[in-house]
Amino acid sequence: MLHQEMKYTMGKTLSQLPEETKCTRCRSQATIRMTNHHANFCPPCFTHFVHSAVERAWKKFPISRDEPLMVAVSGGKDSLALWDILNQLGHKTKGLHINLGIEGFSNASVQAIERFAAERRLPWAQYSLEEVFGHTIPEIQSRTRRKICGVCGLLKRRFLNRLTLMEGFQVLSVGHNLDDEAGRLLGNMVRHREQYMENLYPYLPSPHPRMPARVKPLYRLDAYEITTYCGVRHISFLDSKCPMSRGATSHSFKEALRFLEEKMPGTKRHFLFKHLRGKKVPGNGQDFGICRECSEPTFGDHCSVCALRAHVNQPRKKVAH
Amino acid sequence: MLHQEMKYTMGKTLSQLPEETKCTRCRSQATIRMTNHHANFCPPCFTHFVHSAVERAWKKFPISRDEPLMVAVSGGKDSLALWDILNQLGHKTKGLHINLGIEGFSNASVQAIERFAAERRLPWAQYSLEEVFGHTIPEIQSRTRRKICGVCGLLKRRFLNRLTLMEGFQVLSVGHNLDDEAGRLLGNMVRHREQYMENLYPYLPSPHPRMPARVKPLYRLDAYEITTYCGVRHISFLDSKCPMSRGATSHSFKEALRFLEEKMPGTKRHFLFKHLRGKKVPGNGQDFGICRECSEPTFGDHCSVCALRAHVNQPRKKVAH
Repeated sequence: MLHQEMKYTMGKTLSQLPEETKCTRCRSQATIRMTNHHANFCPPCFTHFVHSAVERAWKKFPISRDEPLMVAVSGGKDSLALWDILNQLGHKTKGLHINLGIEGFSNASVQAIERFAAERRLPWAQYSLEEVFGHTIPEIQSRTRRKICGVCGLLKRRFLNRLTLMEGFQVLSVGHNLDDEAGRLLGNMVRHREQYMENLYPYLPSPHPRMPARVKPLYRLDAYEITTYCGVRHISFLDSKCPMSRGATSHSFKEALRFLEEKMPGTKRHFLFKHLRGKKVPGNGQDFGICRECSEPTFGDHCSVCALRAHVNQPRKKVAH
Repeated sequence: MLHQEMKYTMGKTLSQLPEETKCTRCRSQATIRMTNHHANFCPPCFTHFVHSAVERAWKKFPISRDEPLMVAVSGGKDSLALWDILNQLGHKTKGLHINLGIEGFSNASVQAIERFAAERRLPWAQYSLEEVFGHTIPEIQSRTRRKICGVCGLLKRRFLNRLTLMEGFQVLSVGHNLDDEAGRLLGNMVRHREQYMENLYPYLPSPHPRMPARVKPLYRLDAYEITTYCGVRHISFLDSKCPMSRGATSHSFKEALRFLEEKMPGTKRHFLFKHLRGKKVPGNGQDFGICRECSEPTFGDHCSVCALRAHVNQPRKKVAH
């Protein structure tokens, strides 16, 4: 049973700073060292720092502050911190979770979300992939040779979009942080996938009436800052990696960046922010057709979800593992 | 004394392949495993593979095969392998070494070159930085706060250019390999130094009558292949890093790429070659002026060598280390 191994954490243990260390902002005693920003903070000022980073990100989003936000939640540090921050900043939010049906891991995810939402009395909705797509992730893995992380990412992206609209929201908010975005940028650069680099922007407008806009309010905060925020705000999150994600290439690019950041502090931030500085909000003028199967917007005759379903449902051949 | 620590090597010990392993090219017994190319080679076919990579690189160089080549040699694996290959391929060559005056290291470099050249009866010239610039590298380091690797690179570049012409050659050949070039590309991308990326090309035409053209014939071969070549061809090279180069940022980018290559074999090659595929030979239409001090081509009133000399010669202030 995987369940036993699932680990919940409540963020970083706060740094043991010498007693005379003062908070850079309010001069009271500091407990959090932010070497990257040459600053030390007390917990309230650290919270202020995190909220400011999200407020600053929000300036890039042409979205009214009254717009209700659907928040994609997995139960991990990023999505729960995001939900908490948006809530703290006064946004109207609702959580949205897709249960992937991964033994142990998915139950642990749901428990983390349940506890978080109950403590804060926040509304959320749960859908299972089995119910919306017809199969769990492990089932899909046993029926395809495609890399499961790519398939899972595709399905989450599509169903989060569809369910956001179904739930009556126009904007989906996701927890991608600075490390995720910088790692993705590095991967696209190293593999010369210039076509994907346009979409690497913290705000993507709705490209079609049947697709929501998407925002990434955490793109200015890195994993360390988010984990620390969870500690300060007593957010208990699921601290286990998906047991099926071993060897995902995105991890390697993030790790390469972590190595460069360690050797040359500031590299990661400068790399992403300088890239974004020259960019405009991506256009939404794509030419969509309609999927013959499900009527969702698509570029071909069939959307990728229906194509995947057909592939998974076809009579099984022997698949080597 | 550093000298005692200097290490000469004769390349990789050849792989211990099972006896039945056949050479991919001639079907005789293979001794060299080339996992990256899904091939195994016997020593003569490996030599053929290396020579072919250089011949293929040469197609990018609009240079006659009869053009005499000055070869920048340091005594390390890359420059000695380069000199050997060019010689084997029938080019007329002469070695050019700049003695940097680094205790132990510089003597060891000269010894490696001397031995190599004597065994093959190849002509070479040695100049000392002290004689052409007025100071050794350690002297310069004690008189400036600038990073010594950057200063040393600048001086080598400029004096290799000048001495090449002085020796009556029009083309300078340097030993930068695939790892060097891919690492430099990564560094320029991550730090968004787009202006340097144009010059990342294995052939640079002479931008001024007083500057030679520059070629990098080894850009398709990585460090493993070059070290193996040295083993096959019995080239004894200096296998020690410069004792003053610790912490050079270029190492970090090469290391990050090595990590990615290990996780995703082929990444490094594809990264560099795809980048070069879209590029043209950089133009040579730069607007040079003349240095007031030494009459060398420059963009400002003084060339960077004269500016550095003035900086180094100024009355000494206390320099913190």
